[in-house]
Amino acid sequence: MNSEVYRHRLARCRSLLEQTGVDLLALTPGPNMTYMTGFAEEPGERLLTYLLPREGEPLLLVPELYVEQVANATGIDDLRSWKDSENSLKALELAVDELVGEKGRVALDTRMWARFVLMFREVLPTSKFVDASLIMGELRIIKGKEEIETMQRGFKATDRAMGMVIDTLREGISERELAEIIRSSLMRCGADATPFIPIVSSGPNGSQPHYRYGDRRLRPGDAVVLDFGGVFGGYCTDITRTAFLAPVGEEQKRVYELVLESNELAFGAAMAETPAEEVDRAARRIIEEGGYGVKFIHRTGHGIGLEVHEEPYIVAGNGRPLENGMTFSIEPGIYLPGKFGVRIENIVYVADGKAVRFDEYTREMQVI
Amino acid sequence: MNSEVYRHRLARCRSLLEQTGVDLLALTPGPNMTYMTGFAEEPGERLLTYLLPREGEPLLLVPELYVEQVANATGIDDLRSWKDSENSLKALELAVDELVGEKGRVALDTRMWARFVLMFREVLPTSKFVDASLIMGELRIIKGKEEIETMQRGFKATDRAMGMVIDTLREGISERELAEIIRSSLMRCGADATPFIPIVSSGPNGSQPHYRYGDRRLRPGDAVVLDFGGVFGGYCTDITRTAFLAPVGEEQKRVYELVLESNELAFGAAMAETPAEEVDRAARRIIEEGGYGVKFIHRTGHGIGLEVHEEPYIVAGNGRPLENGMTFSIEPGIYLPGKFGVRIENIVYVADGKAVRFDEYTREMQVI
Repeated sequence: MNSEVYRHRLARCRSLLEQTGVDLLALTPGPNMTYMTGFAEEPGERLLTYLLPREGEPLLLVPELYVEQVANATGIDDLRSWKDSENSLKALELAVDELVGEKGRVALDTRMWARFVLMFREVLPTSKFVDASLIMGELRIIKGKEEIETMQRGFKATDRAMGMVIDTLREGISERELAEIIRSSLMRCGADATPFIPIVSSGPNGSQPHYRYGDRRLRPGDAVVLDFGGVFGGYCTDITRTAFLAPVGEEQKRVYELVLESNELAFGAAMAETPAEEVDRAARRIIEEGGYGVKFIHRTGHGIGLEVHEEPYIVAGNGRPLENGMTFSIEPGIYLPGKFGVRIENIVYVADGKAVRFDEYTREMQVI
Repeated sequence: MNSEVYRHRLARCRSLLEQTGVDLLALTPGPNMTYMTGFAEEPGERLLTYLLPREGEPLLLVPELYVEQVANATGIDDLRSWKDSENSLKALELAVDELVGEKGRVALDTRMWARFVLMFREVLPTSKFVDASLIMGELRIIKGKEEIETMQRGFKATDRAMGMVIDTLREGISERELAEIIRSSLMRCGADATPFIPIVSSGPNGSQPHYRYGDRRLRPGDAVVLDFGGVFGGYCTDITRTAFLAPVGEEQKRVYELVLESNELAFGAAMAETPAEEVDRAARRIIEEGGYGVKFIHRTGHGIGLEVHEEPYIVAGNGRPLENGMTFSIEPGIYLPGKFGVRIENIVYVADGKAVRFDEYTREMQVI
């Protein structure tokens, strides 16, 4: 991203601080800090925080060993550093003292570790803390053109990886071997990392939506849920398909058709101005009618971007209307303990009022 | 780990709750929850928490889609679930109401996201919150026999991976290519994942201790810092070596010798009953005498186990005496902006009063 993009984000962020009455925004390493500064780092035990007061310039408080790296990555002038041999609480106190008065409202990064939340509490005992997703969620929920393009490239690669993985399905291969094939396929297709541990849940393991993988080997008659993604240019991809090893049973066929129809109906409902929960309702209705309502044990979808799960959530109770530039999953599923599971996940973006799929790998039932 | 191990941990945890006057321990997915329950999951936006009152049995509050998975993994009887379409704050309120009274002391997982800290604050407005590392750090700082053995296996594999990586060093190969070779070598050696993004910092990039990798290609005369690790049986490994492409300059040679001597001196100082900061001092003194004191811009080491950085920290100000069963890094470094960096990292454990190295890959200067 060029520096123009970051200046624009800073301006929008400032106006949201104003609107929400927040006096100070405090971010820690993770997607929010990356969004505001371009600096990407894993969260860690050392205090590293981006502080943006409602009025004035942002500053970064960083451990000494990060100074050169953060200066290179962010172009932010006001860097304050502390050494490993010093007390970071003291450094934080010095930094915030000038930025926020008593009883100020402070928005803390939604992912900030409790360790640091408690430090902020100590140096700002009378402040009111709120979740910074109030601001950052709002900023990030609408993707810009360059973000959509980055994600398009990522999903093209992810489609290719899905093809490579499905080509290797056969009796006797283990979930663990498939997980490794997923990782190496994603890397070969250009991913920088995997944003979550791949899910390869075969046969009865498929009834656990977030099962990862184990040592079970594929057998005839298995349904195999494959759910994975990569990080491409900082943005996450995510895709799920369910494939089968012959022979396919009657219930497997019926369940697959229901989930596929649910996926299509939700896709059709996903239009600008439609409340997010309507998309969930569209996905759920057909599965309920098919008699599997209580087996669809999660929401229909989640937003995606710098994080693999972010706003908007496609869930009952979320009345927020969809808008152009939103990116989210549509992933109905049916989970039958002791038997199998089926999930079909697309990621879509809204453009010109309608949903468009990022991933184009076939959703037709594939039997190997 | 067998269930005996978890029962023992629970008993020790209870007695620490007693000693520290904590009424309720609240953990979220991550190393602490894994340590107490065996359930390993990435942190996420849904509330999933392990609650242990000072008196009474632990309970787990989990999203509905995790019920089967958590029940299988933990063997904990008291599972309460909430659905995506429900309010998790309400579910939390119901769960904690019975566990802790007003003004109770509640220890929050050090990695708990602010999002959840604020929820705990809302349902327990008069409680005093403290960092659960008070308890969990204490529990985890001494490794049991089975933990040491798991780590020994991990480091044997990591040594092999280091050999495979160093064998591929040559002029023209890029940092990014080397990072991919690191990942695939670790996986081929049996790693389940990489606990942090590998560091391949060549030439002038080496002066940033936590630089990751970029597109720079190796050139004659480069120092190349290779710092990576894998996850083996849930436990992290971590290793750093610095290799060189001929010709090696005089300053490179002098700096390498200083860092190697610093590493050896710190290793010699790492004995049971010695305060952690003494090891840091031993590492630092020789580098200061060599005139590079201000270029050793980080602590000497960190504990390691389920987390790649955990207690004990080998740093000025940490007067805690080392004990048998502690596992930590010794990793002095010298960083020269615009030129190069050198770091040599061993991980050691204390047994029979003395430090023993987990990793045995050579520390001698290697010039390719």
